[in-house]
Amino acid sequence: MTAPRVVIIGAGFGGLSAAKALAGAPAEVVVIDRSNHHLFQPLLYQVATAGLAPTQIASPIRSILGPQANARVVLGEVTGVDVDSRTVSLADRSLVYDHLIIATGAAHSYFGHDGWAQVAPGLKSLDDALDMRRRILLAFERAEVEPDPAERERLLTFVIIGAGPTGVELAGAIAELARRALARDFRAIRRSMAKVELVEAGPRVLPSFPAPLSAYAHRTLTRLGVDVRLGKAVSGCDADGVTLSDERIAARTILWAAGVLASPAAAWTQAEADRAGRVVVTPRLTLQGHDEVFVIGDAAHIDTGGGPLPGLAPVAKQQGAYAAAAIRRRLVGAEPPPRFRYRNAGSLATIGRQAAVVTIGRLRLTGVLAWVLWSVTHIYFLIGFRNRIAVTLDWAWAYATFERGARLITGAGSATIRPQLPRLTAK
Amino acid sequence: MTAPRVVIIGAGFGGLSAAKALAGAPAEVVVIDRSNHHLFQPLLYQVATAGLAPTQIASPIRSILGPQANARVVLGEVTGVDVDSRTVSLADRSLVYDHLIIATGAAHSYFGHDGWAQVAPGLKSLDDALDMRRRILLAFERAEVEPDPAERERLLTFVIIGAGPTGVELAGAIAELARRALARDFRAIRRSMAKVELVEAGPRVLPSFPAPLSAYAHRTLTRLGVDVRLGKAVSGCDADGVTLSDERIAARTILWAAGVLASPAAAWTQAEADRAGRVVVTPRLTLQGHDEVFVIGDAAHIDTGGGPLPGLAPVAKQQGAYAAAAIRRRLVGAEPPPRFRYRNAGSLATIGRQAAVVTIGRLRLTGVLAWVLWSVTHIYFLIGFRNRIAVTLDWAWAYATFERGARLITGAGSATIRPQLPRLTAK
Repeated sequence: MTAPRVVIIGAGFGGLSAAKALAGAPAEVVVIDRSNHHLFQPLLYQVATAGLAPTQIASPIRSILGPQANARVVLGEVTGVDVDSRTVSLADRSLVYDHLIIATGAAHSYFGHDGWAQVAPGLKSLDDALDMRRRILLAFERAEVEPDPAERERLLTFVIIGAGPTGVELAGAIAELARRALARDFRAIRRSMAKVELVEAGPRVLPSFPAPLSAYAHRTLTRLGVDVRLGKAVSGCDADGVTLSDERIAARTILWAAGVLASPAAAWTQAEADRAGRVVVTPRLTLQGHDEVFVIGDAAHIDTGGGPLPGLAPVAKQQGAYAAAAIRRRLVGAEPPPRFRYRNAGSLATIGRQAAVVTIGRLRLTGVLAWVLWSVTHIYFLIGFRNRIAVTLDWAWAYATFERGARLITGAGSATIRPQLPRLTAK
Repeated sequence: MTAPRVVIIGAGFGGLSAAKALAGAPAEVVVIDRSNHHLFQPLLYQVATAGLAPTQIASPIRSILGPQANARVVLGEVTGVDVDSRTVSLADRSLVYDHLIIATGAAHSYFGHDGWAQVAPGLKSLDDALDMRRRILLAFERAEVEPDPAERERLLTFVIIGAGPTGVELAGAIAELARRALARDFRAIRRSMAKVELVEAGPRVLPSFPAPLSAYAHRTLTRLGVDVRLGKAVSGCDADGVTLSDERIAARTILWAAGVLASPAAAWTQAEADRAGRVVVTPRLTLQGHDEVFVIGDAAHIDTGGGPLPGLAPVAKQQGAYAAAAIRRRLVGAEPPPRFRYRNAGSLATIGRQAAVVTIGRLRLTGVLAWVLWSVTHIYFLIGFRNRIAVTLDWAWAYATFERGARLITGAGSATIRPQLPRLTAK
């Protein structure tokens, strides 16, 4: 008799947490992911803004699960799930499961304007972050050799759409990059020339935080030189700029930090989905009528009172551990566990050097102390002792010198932009 | 009156050494490169084999020259040089110079078989190294899920063509990657399944070193499990393997470390070139009839007695410093310096953990001591204090744990391979 098989789709925070919690369980655990690495997404904006290198926030899934004897890792793209025959389909093979955990996360949503993706890239994968880094750094390179003042202004204008944590973190990091690290290495551009525009349709930045913390973040961004525009819905994005309801911003670099859209899990399973595409799960995180199928993390919609749970790493991790515990019970024929409950340990977001906002229960923190807490927390949760050392050193170095070590332009994408590049004024 | 302009094409070891030696000179120094970073090429094979991350061996040229007030950096691709009108052409502008240093390096040579480049990539840029890393890591991923034993064997066979320092270093690193770091993270492949084939047309490995050191390197490679095949010329490369004069090796991964071809500097300047495309320069490193044009490093052919100087970093650096000194004399109207002389400080090549070969004058070293000397030298010459710390830590970590931290598969290239990937045996 072979051991029952648990298939986990996705090795993000949710899927990996489930896989690890199944260590030693009497089952074969197969983790499928389309990339070979687990990504520490909360720090992805640092890769996009040249503060950290990809290796510092990513670890090979095989290394993480290597020591776990009952785990197998498969690099591949899932194309469908058949919950009746209990089969997961990949490009050219399929895989039968006894228990399934769908932890496929979310992608960007352009609210029906998929054409905007070309000019306003979002930030979900390492490749996204490297693309963003290339765009930002190339904009400065082009501005340095651009004789036309109007075009130079467009090149030095960075528009970030969406003022949630990712948008705020990106805006703060780009403002610092422009005003400190880059200004001293260029000859033709002065630091005052760079403009960072943070556009938000809602009435305040960081809408998921309490109002006073939003106000603090707003003030801090303004002090960094970020132009915060609230209550402005985007009606158009193209290669020359962004159109808001009542105005136009000319810009060559537009970054998308607004909507998310869940993975195709709902389509695969033909389950009920919410507006963001998330599968509406039972209080035990299972698919309606399929106790053997769990949907967790950003792919799932569950309301434990107080609205649907947010798309945060702690939610996904706790749900992964819960699904693993439920499967362990199923493996030995025990009763299912009580319904899933989320233990909210707090939220954090950073705005720049020495500035962050933190809520822990009723406690609310801003300023340097919040920033230290943010730094310590993020380093602590980074997977792998080695990465922790490297990131700590890198941050200490960047803090002391205002340098950005990861300012490399690489990748095929740079070649397509290259031909337009150098406009030198003849001597 | 504006300051005279020195244009330097290429920010490799030669160009950068020249630019730095011109600090404080009464001239405007313009450094043009098609990438935004200086690359420490001797360690590029470590990026290709997932030992180091790109940021650890590359620094933005702007950061390096940022503090040098008379230097300007231009990101751009040079399309031609007109030595009569003293003009360098870029994609859409041109730039007039008073003094020119061409330090454009070399590319791979496939000896007229340019089609081989697709299946047997070489190693010159960061993008090359990331492509190689992707190919190597994906081969293991595919082998893990491949049910057909013959195809699995092809996937686990790595052919390196050319047994100079780069080929030897690649072969040693891949053998270690296969036998140590990767073997423990996979379930279906055993370490004994991986085959590394080092193919060389000449009679020994490391032909530029003394024969006893070649013999030592050969023995060490064999002990690491590398199959060294000498006196074998390649007559064909395709997606299924390599054809040698008298046999065929079935392999999915072929890496090219054989020939180099100099940059188009000779074509630009219509100068005499040697068989490898290098510009034949005067004893003062200038173009015949153009005292204001210097050609240095891998782009230049100069014989100071004992054959043409090899394509090594110390040669390029010394020539860069020489060209800068000659231009400084020209700027003040002084006589040209005496002819260029190369001070040979020795050569080093590593084969794997604790094994290297070193020649310094008459001294010849092998084994652990040579390896320590190799490590210390390479870390010392890495540009930037920060990189030195990071690389030292990374090596110490990799040495202690046999882990490879940079095992990430990223980039657009991975997507094109993906669809063929996962062949899982159904349960």
